[in-house]
Amino acid sequence: LRESMQRDLKFETPYVFVIFGASGDLAKKKIYPTLWWLFRDNLLPVNIKFIGYARSDLTVFKLRESFEKNCKVRENEKCAFDDFIKKCSYVQGQYDTSEGFQRLQSSIDDFQKESNNQAVNRLYYLALPPSVFNVVSTELKKNCMDHGDSWTRVIIEKPFGHDLKSSCELSTHLAKLFKEDQIYRIDHYLGKEMVQNLMVMRFGNRILAPSWNRDHIASVMISFKEDFGTGGRAGYFDTAGIIRDVMQNHLMQILTLVAMEKPASLNAEDIRDEKVKVLKAAKVVELKDVVVGQYIASPEFDHPEASQGYKDDKSVPADSTTPTYALAVVHINNERWEGVPFFLRCGKALNEKKAEVRIQFKEVSGDIYPSGELKRSELVMRVQPNEAVYMKLMTKKPGMGFGVEETELDLTYNNRFKEVRLPDAYERLFLEVFMGSQINFVRTDELEYAWRILTPVLEELKKKKVQPVQYKFGSRGPTEGDELMKKYGFIFTGTYKWVAPKL
Amino acid sequence: LRESMQRDLKFETPYVFVIFGASGDLAKKKIYPTLWWLFRDNLLPVNIKFIGYARSDLTVFKLRESFEKNCKVRENEKCAFDDFIKKCSYVQGQYDTSEGFQRLQSSIDDFQKESNNQAVNRLYYLALPPSVFNVVSTELKKNCMDHGDSWTRVIIEKPFGHDLKSSCELSTHLAKLFKEDQIYRIDHYLGKEMVQNLMVMRFGNRILAPSWNRDHIASVMISFKEDFGTGGRAGYFDTAGIIRDVMQNHLMQILTLVAMEKPASLNAEDIRDEKVKVLKAAKVVELKDVVVGQYIASPEFDHPEASQGYKDDKSVPADSTTPTYALAVVHINNERWEGVPFFLRCGKALNEKKAEVRIQFKEVSGDIYPSGELKRSELVMRVQPNEAVYMKLMTKKPGMGFGVEETELDLTYNNRFKEVRLPDAYERLFLEVFMGSQINFVRTDELEYAWRILTPVLEELKKKKVQPVQYKFGSRGPTEGDELMKKYGFIFTGTYKWVAPKL
Amino acid sequence: LRESMQRDLKFETPYVFVIFGASGDLAKKKIYPTLWWLFRDNLLPVNIKFIGYARSDLTVFKLRESFEKNCKVRENEKCAFDDFIKKCSYVQGQYDTSEGFQRLQSSIDDFQKESNNQAVNRLYYLALPPSVFNVVSTELKKNCMDHGDSWTRVIIEKPFGHDLKSSCELSTHLAKLFKEDQIYRIDHYLGKEMVQNLMVMRFGNRILAPSWNRDHIASVMISFKEDFGTGGRAGYFDTAGIIRDVMQNHLMQILTLVAMEKPASLNAEDIRDEKVKVLKAAKVVELKDVVVGQYIASPEFDHPEASQGYKDDKSVPADSTTPTYALAVVHINNERWEGVPFFLRCGKALNEKKAEVRIQFKEVSGDIYPSGELKRSELVMRVQPNEAVYMKLMTKKPGMGFGVEETELDLTYNNRFKEVRLPDAYERLFLEVFMGSQINFVRTDELEYAWRILTPVLEELKKKKVQPVQYKFGSRGPTEGDELMKKYGFIFTGTYKWVAPKL
Amino acid sequence: LRESMQRDLKFETPYVFVIFGASGDLAKKKIYPTLWWLFRDNLLPVNIKFIGYARSDLTVFKLRESFEKNCKVRENEKCAFDDFIKKCSYVQGQYDTSEGFQRLQSSIDDFQKESNNQAVNRLYYLALPPSVFNVVSTELKKNCMDHGDSWTRVIIEKPFGHDLKSSCELSTHLAKLFKEDQIYRIDHYLGKEMVQNLMVMRFGNRILAPSWNRDHIASVMISFKEDFGTGGRAGYFDTAGIIRDVMQNHLMQILTLVAMEKPASLNAEDIRDEKVKVLKAAKVVELKDVVVGQYIASPEFDHPEASQGYKDDKSVPADSTTPTYALAVVHINNERWEGVPFFLRCGKALNEKKAEVRIQFKEVSGDIYPSGELKRSELVMRVQPNEAVYMKLMTKKPGMGFGVEETELDLTYNNRFKEVRLPDAYERLFLEVFMGSQINFVRTDELEYAWRILTPVLEELKKKKVQPVQYKFGSRGPTEGDELMKKYGFIFTGTYKWVAPKL
Repeated sequence: LRESMQRDLKFETPYVFVIFGASGDLAKKKIYPTLWWLFRDNLLPVNIKFIGYARSDLTVFKLRESFEKNCKVRENEKCAFDDFIKKCSYVQGQYDTSEGFQRLQSSIDDFQKESNNQAVNRLYYLALPPSVFNVVSTELKKNCMDHGDSWTRVIIEKPFGHDLKSSCELSTHLAKLFKEDQIYRIDHYLGKEMVQNLMVMRFGNRILAPSWNRDHIASVMISFKEDFGTGGRAGYFDTAGIIRDVMQNHLMQILTLVAMEKPASLNAEDIRDEKVKVLKAAKVVELKDVVVGQYIASPEFDHPEASQGYKDDKSVPADSTTPTYALAVVHINNERWEGVPFFLRCGKALNEKKAEVRIQFKEVSGDIYPSGELKRSELVMRVQPNEAVYMKLMTKKPGMGFGVEETELDLTYNNRFKEVRLPDAYERLFLEVFMGSQINFVRTDELEYAWRILTPVLEELKKKKVQPVQYKFGSRGPTEGDELMKKYGFIFTGTYKWVAPKL
Repeated sequence: LRESMQRDLKFETPYVFVIFGASGDLAKKKIYPTLWWLFRDNLLPVNIKFIGYARSDLTVFKLRESFEKNCKVRENEKCAFDDFIKKCSYVQGQYDTSEGFQRLQSSIDDFQKESNNQAVNRLYYLALPPSVFNVVSTELKKNCMDHGDSWTRVIIEKPFGHDLKSSCELSTHLAKLFKEDQIYRIDHYLGKEMVQNLMVMRFGNRILAPSWNRDHIASVMISFKEDFGTGGRAGYFDTAGIIRDVMQNHLMQILTLVAMEKPASLNAEDIRDEKVKVLKAAKVVELKDVVVGQYIASPEFDHPEASQGYKDDKSVPADSTTPTYALAVVHINNERWEGVPFFLRCGKALNEKKAEVRIQFKEVSGDIYPSGELKRSELVMRVQPNEAVYMKLMTKKPGMGFGVEETELDLTYNNRFKEVRLPDAYERLFLEVFMGSQINFVRTDELEYAWRILTPVLEELKKKKVQPVQYKFGSRGPTEGDELMKKYGFIFTGTYKWVAPKL
Repeated sequence: LRESMQRDLKFETPYVFVIFGASGDLAKKKIYPTLWWLFRDNLLPVNIKFIGYARSDLTVFKLRESFEKNCKVRENEKCAFDDFIKKCSYVQGQYDTSEGFQRLQSSIDDFQKESNNQAVNRLYYLALPPSVFNVVSTELKKNCMDHGDSWTRVIIEKPFGHDLKSSCELSTHLAKLFKEDQIYRIDHYLGKEMVQNLMVMRFGNRILAPSWNRDHIASVMISFKEDFGTGGRAGYFDTAGIIRDVMQNHLMQILTLVAMEKPASLNAEDIRDEKVKVLKAAKVVELKDVVVGQYIASPEFDHPEASQGYKDDKSVPADSTTPTYALAVVHINNERWEGVPFFLRCGKALNEKKAEVRIQFKEVSGDIYPSGELKRSELVMRVQPNEAVYMKLMTKKPGMGFGVEETELDLTYNNRFKEVRLPDAYERLFLEVFMGSQINFVRTDELEYAWRILTPVLEELKKKKVQPVQYKFGSRGPTEGDELMKKYGFIFTGTYKWVAPKL
Repeated sequence: LRESMQRDLKFETPYVFVIFGASGDLAKKKIYPTLWWLFRDNLLPVNIKFIGYARSDLTVFKLRESFEKNCKVRENEKCAFDDFIKKCSYVQGQYDTSEGFQRLQSSIDDFQKESNNQAVNRLYYLALPPSVFNVVSTELKKNCMDHGDSWTRVIIEKPFGHDLKSSCELSTHLAKLFKEDQIYRIDHYLGKEMVQNLMVMRFGNRILAPSWNRDHIASVMISFKEDFGTGGRAGYFDTAGIIRDVMQNHLMQILTLVAMEKPASLNAEDIRDEKVKVLKAAKVVELKDVVVGQYIASPEFDHPEASQGYKDDKSVPADSTTPTYALAVVHINNERWEGVPFFLRCGKALNEKKAEVRIQFKEVSGDIYPSGELKRSELVMRVQPNEAVYMKLMTKKPGMGFGVEETELDLTYNNRFKEVRLPDAYERLFLEVFMGSQINFVRTDELEYAWRILTPVLEELKKKKVQPVQYKFGSRGPTEGDELMKKYGFIFTGTYKWVAPKL
């Protein structure tokens, strides 16, 4: 890999990676540590600078203090970390006037001069609240673009708007400033090992291809469960809710990867064309196909946060109807998927921490076994934690008996690939920005079509003030969720539970 | 299980299990030990007698001596073993006169009287050489049948004839004496865990069903490899050869289970109807689709037998063309399999001991990955040793890279079912005879159609005195075998080898 | 054809065709005329005799009178007809004593002597009421069999029993007398052009094969409609009813041909094995899946019989619940058909005369046309009258418009094969008996499994005295029928009606 | 239709339809007559003007003279034709200066004033040779665009360049002047009834869907045969050749419609996305997969042109290698089509005049009929002349025989839709431009990808001076073509020929 990257990235070229909002949480917790890890592993170009930009009066020293502990620097890496810090600098500036941006541009120009006047490639990471997003991007365009002999790429983070309308406005704003191939919208789920594996699983294995359709699949469940509550983020969370926070982006992205047709090639545009195509075929979600929930305290449950329900947090309004749990059934009206429900399910303060895709197959047709003996095949891709792929199958009950039982063909990464470190999603995605691969970034029309699907129900929930179902901290979530899934044909037998092999 | 058997077998009923040829090898090595294990595990009816019959002047005591060591009686089982021996008796008699058989019948009648005059169910195991088979079965029919108020079942072992003609003669002979539902032809491969699992895998799992056909499968290989030579059996072996010894029965039986259509029900007749149907569709094997081999010494190879080639054995004629290795390509001309080669491969003195079924799938069609990166999917059922099912798949290469690699979804019985003892094939099959289940026994027409497929090439090999290809003891067998498989589209990439997970 | 038959039938061999019940209706209306047509067209062996046998005191001359008008002898055929009559003879005899049968045997023996002592092949057509069936067949066996150097074949006609039990008794009786390959049970529907075409359509056309299953077919309707009432047969009819008269035999036979798997070969046994297999998979019909009706007078309807309802016939008991119309839904629980309803529908005194098979396909999945525009594809095989195959399809509405409309790909035999005479079902079947082809005759187990499906509901109808729904002479039958079909997903759009092309 | 169009087109709005190149052949033969037919049938807006533009010094009177005979005005339409002429006007002007275009713009502005100052929608038909295309389009953009309150659409005709490079230059030129939704590239084959029917057939009929893929289809032939030579056009033709003239556009367009995946909707962009996707998957055609031919005189053949071979035309260079016949095999590397050859075949001076799509299906797998009896299924869509769809099937040979034979399910438009006039391709397409439907017009990227497939082989043919195979006027073309098709698995049995039903 390293060699291939060094070849592709022409490592002698100068690069700057500018973090707008350098004093913020995301910068401290994710961006700087990720850059450090990539740096440490020699995955970045040699001639690079990391420039922080924010309004605060900071120094590199203070910046380092703010993120160093998140970098988990090991003893033998201290020296390398010092080298990393040497490549960091900081520009203090306002977001709404040009002056700071001009200084930033000067500093990049200086870097160019230092670099034998080779043109500098620019990565701008906008780790900013929506309120200043527009001004910063405008100023950036005005003052900080490349001079035509290198490239500029802009990385942005959700929220990409609040609904279809605001999202489109944002997109229109960006489209005026940048070309599509300059914009990298991050959905960090697209950087996860198992999510990146989805396309290979689907398009690389002939054995799975013929059953991947409505004739054989009963339902697809994409679920994201957290075993903790909103913690200190309740105030912010209450303005968004779990649907905007998780479902509209992460789960919808996974859905497109599970459901899309095979693209014409592995080019980013061909892949994103297919993602858009499947989103076009998805029907707008209706209120009857949604269950929303809000967790309440469960003092008897053994978890530090369990004694506090969502609305017990003071930053949450007393009449908040913001869901902390949501289940939505998405119907895709195309040749492959008509009639197959896609369950998008996400929630906080549930009984376990898990993100997975579960393909449940239909019953065997023309079953010759005693009624009820055969359980449905399932193919599960566990995204986190403990990455695994497993296929639930029926086999003869081993031993002298004649019966059948459920077991699984298993691929648990911890066992199979003991020596391999699975990198963090951000690491992958940063690398992909460097390499100019847009496969795992959200294109403008993708975003629009994804919002199209969920916006009407978000508005209806709000307008009708739909009260979320209460569920206890640490529970499986509202039983209404299970019932809706059952109504759409999901079968939970309870006779089987995968246990990660222990070694 | 035990309960279900006790219910089905009406355990109060008296049973006799008569071993004809009680002084022979099979009786000592397999039949008595198997009966003991079933007895020990309480899987047999309580009121049972085991009667040995042979020409030798034996006693139960001598009999016990002959098989006890094969019974592997553990310390705490000694007492039970004595009980087992108490149920054994011995009748000395000729095979070609009625006198001994009449005494046998009397002794069974006595047993009936002892049993409150309940009619005795009879199992006759004919562990006899072909030379006396006809007379014994004739006398049996004349003298030892039930009186209409109980049942009689006759168990017989291969060889079931030497070719289509002799096999049909034998069948015709049997058909005059017994009804089909009284005849239990044993092919002990049908008692193996993984072979019994084949039907469950195929008909119990929706996820596998749609790809189980010519549209998706490139080839099926059924192989049986032994890592030792003919040992002391060379004299006998030379009259048969590997095709009659292994391919015509074991491999052909596995083939039918892999290839047959779903039966109308799990009834033995329905299943055997389908096995016959697929054999009917198989074309007669042609000489051009066969490779035969004979092993030669390989003194440098580390195996006690390796210094002796097959023909170095004095009991083998110097001009013997008997194959110790054979590969045959079977073509099945039906809707599901037309164009898919079935490779039947078996051999002695090879590099490993293994029996397995390997389904190789076609390449992905419309492949979008770089040419050659994707390898074919395979589904492997390892029959012995170390039972396992695994599916070779492509996944994203874990870690930071972008490539793909081969890995597998695995189900290794040793790991997954650590606590379960997998019973010996004979144990299962004996039980099935007690229970009257003929599913795993070879029906007359099955036998006929199986011989039909291989007899012409056997005759041609003999008539043309085709010289087997020599291969070294401990090798992979003749390369001509690999070449024939390649010609029919089998792809051996060599990039991947399944390793049983170690715990 | 003629050449192939002459070769196969060794036309020099002597044959007798004996009609038991020569004075009865069937003999006069069907058997003699059919024999004449075959004779006229040179399709019978040259050295043949037609022997009538009955209790009446008849002569060949009287016999001729009784059937000549049904033979439709054309002017230029008179001479040939005289030749035909010359080959006819008559034996008068009782059915329940041996004497007449012995005379028959003598007369066949005489024929043998006349024929250079070549052994005579015998065809015995039992056109007899159930009451004498058993005695005749017993006497036949006792007195009239071949001497081992020629063959004997027995042709029998429905009713083959009244229910499962009586049918099995009859079969057991026959099995004691004749071997399966001597018994030819006629279901004359199996002789119809379009019914014989079913297998070719299914197994001869790759384009149709992939859609012939539950994934694509919504339902199959097999219907038989008559536009006249019971006429003079009401007395007899009332003891049977439409289910026994038409559904249990004709419609069930067609069902097996539509639904069976591809046989291993075109041999009669392989084909009948598959017919039995599909009958095994059919579930017993339940009362809830049946609609029965009885027609009433409809004086305003323009048909000579319309002024009389079924029960207006004096030979029908006043409280008769015998159905003259029946719809039954058959469910076949196998891999191909699970979930696809088979509608068997038959009735008298309906709006049209028609027998057809209609395969209705599912809606296009992922439909992109305005909802409701696309109608379901249908494949229709019209058995009678006016044989045709047509496929209902959607095409672009021809002309300037942009819409779609239903039309059809058509094959109407009258147009396409103007010059070809489609022979009567009996002609074909007689020939097949001569040639020893049992494909189109009902095997014992077939009959048993067919009765198994309908007997329970027949008994329940009787036991519960279920009142048939009244429907008017000349109507489409009870609307309850349409509703039951609709419940099972049949869609009748009414937007389209096939019109046989007029030339 | 008329109502829907009148609603959609807001018929009160003023429209101009401007024909650049009004004095040319296309204008006279196609454009004016087509406008007249639409006008006559009340399919055009009421308030419309037809403006001719050319360099010649013409009058409307002269113009009328030039096209009237092509309009086939019937007696009772004379009056309407006069009305049509009243709506025509003529602007004389140069192509390379602005002056004429400004006058045109003024005249349209005047029309706006006359029309209560409603803004005028503009359709510009560029019926011009390539040499002036660029200047005219540039002037048009500069002088004649709408004022933002109505729309402007530009219709252009092939040739769209001479190869990939020139086509891209032209596209780039157009892209600078007009937006994609203003450009209507005409390929008149897209206006043909049967071509427009292709999508309905494929996506409207469930019965056909499951067999439309590589598992079942052996090959697809798209052929275009003319029974006349180059006539007076040989000089022009020689600069293009049949590949550019017919294959690259008409046949390639049909190919995309046969091969594309189902689009997300019927919107033009979704459909054209899919057409592009399938073109992307097509491999560049290689020289080994091409046969080119040139016709020679065949004096004995009964056709007025037959005495002259292609090179006998004086306007053709003596060493011309321009093909008048070409067969190319296109391979589409996607999931649906990998391994299925698409034969594009076109030629002049052949034995018949015909354009059709022929889908040939694979043999039945696991065939149980005597080898060779079953012929392949075919589905044929005859584009011209004599529009028809028919499906070649095997049925039982009607009559007494037992064999099978080929016949067809037929839909011949002449028979089935006797009363319907099938409009000319141009009529449809003009209407679609009025209505703003771009479905049947070629998008820029479509054009580019189509050229990509054939340009390399065009260049290689030229560079290597590949000599076309000579074939006789009136023949089936070079046998080399048949051989190449056979090599790729096309089977021509010759046992069957569809005959259009005669009434």
